Amino acid sequence: MDGEKKYFKNISHRERAIFEGAITMGALFHQFDGTPVNLKTAESLEKAIGEAMELQPCIDKVVVKINREMLGNIENEFQYLSLNGNMLDIQVFSNYEGQNAIIRMEYIEELDYPLMYVEKVD
Amino acid sequence: MDGEKKYFKNISHRERAIFEGAITMGALFHQFDGTPVNLKTAESLEKAIGEAMELQPCIDKVVVKINREMLGNIENEFQYLSLNGNMLDIQVFSNYEGQNAIIRMEYIEELDYPLMYVEKVD
Amino acid sequence: MDGEKKYFKNISHRERAIFEGAITMGALFHQFDGTPVNLKTAESLEKAIGEAMELQPCIDKVVVKINREMLGNIENEFQYLSLNGNMLDIQVFSNYEGQNAIIRMEYIEELDYPLMYVEKVD
Amino acid sequence: MDGEKKYFKNISHRERAIFEGAITMGALFHQFDGTPVNLKTAESLEKAIGEAMELQPCIDKVVVKINREMLGNIENEFQYLSLNGNMLDIQVFSNYEGQNAIIRMEYIEELDYPLMYVEKVD
Repeated sequence: MDGEKKYFKNISHRERAIFEGAITMGALFHQFDGTPVNLKTAESLEKAIGEAMELQPCIDKVVVKINREMLGNIENEFQYLSLNGNMLDIQVFSNYEGQNAIIRMEYIEELDYPLMYVEKVD
Repeated sequence: MDGEKKYFKNISHRERAIFEGAITMGALFHQFDGTPVNLKTAESLEKAIGEAMELQPCIDKVVVKINREMLGNIENEFQYLSLNGNMLDIQVFSNYEGQNAIIRMEYIEELDYPLMYVEKVD
Repeated sequence: MDGEKKYFKNISHRERAIFEGAITMGALFHQFDGTPVNLKTAESLEKAIGEAMELQPCIDKVVVKINREMLGNIENEFQYLSLNGNMLDIQVFSNYEGQNAIIRMEYIEELDYPLMYVEKVD
Repeated sequence: MDGEKKYFKNISHRERAIFEGAITMGALFHQFDGTPVNLKTAESLEKAIGEAMELQPCIDKVVVKINREMLGNIENEFQYLSLNGNMLDIQVFSNYEGQNAIIRMEYIEELDYPLMYVEKVD
């Protein structure tokens, strides 16, 4: 990815790691939000989301956890839910030139909202 | 799914099978179009798409094939593509009260377009 | 769209109208589900969704209504919601060779689910 | 948005502006990629995308331009295209506590890819 280096001269390596991780987190959520899911399919969906989003630039690893308790409480007659932010816990591990960041999305009870934030950065 | 029966009195079982298969095909394409994919991740993505869309009402089976030849020819420096209709071959098997339909999406060369059509209906 | 006619020889004009309307309804929902929306932006989103989906084959008109009451009750601190099926009322008017169908999606209280069904067909 | 402040203690205001802008850019692309569009509908789609994504946290403005030249060259018989990154030029203006950033996505000819980068940051 050398051809693009000149476009990133104005930010530090640390900022680049944050930037790329954030791009991937926003992308992940809006790509897969709404996908039908239940207890039987959660595992294959977690795996596919992780593998797909690890392809994005500067991403080392993506860990996706879909809340099984919420899936276990399905009461509608169709026996599945549409994937949404409240049932997701995601970590995106980004890396640019040795500088690491972990971007996290998780449901925060006091906010009543799935918050995206920088969990860790070197 | 008995509570909904009254909403479908105006169509035949055959039409219902076509209807539900078509809903799922349109849904599938617009849910996953744009997902990053390459040769390493195609299999997990095919599996997750199939399992997710099989949850939809009246769907027995969903077979998803991502064109490996197109993935093998990736030339951009990021080494993956965004999933699009031209690289997909999909069969949705729907069933309502014993009436079966197969909805297909595949790239048709003479149309230069991924066409959705009813491949088979009893 | 004459090149594709041979792919639809096995279904009636009525079935084709149902098929194309259903494709568009499934597509619409999974394309736009998850879009941020509030009272200020609902109108432009309704218009854009309608105009976009009217481009699909055999679609005459798409009417999209986003529930303003639900948007008025937003309580999270970010002052918007993610578009979901429970707040949508959609009519897709399809037409194939003079044969008309209206596909509807609306929240049905007794099902506690946004149901897609054939509201009217000639 | 005070409740969330404690989650962002580990990054600077400048990094927060980059972070939120990047989240929104990744989200925008994967939310709307695949939407049917042509010359008649491009304007309403640009407007709706902009207004929707301006709702996201810390976003002041989102400017979306869909390439009209590409839309003018449509050759398939359906007379529309699926929105993709190569036809988009987007600027996301983010702001956190007076610290501004502009995140850009545009097609870069030498990369043959729609690149997301930080166009400007204070």
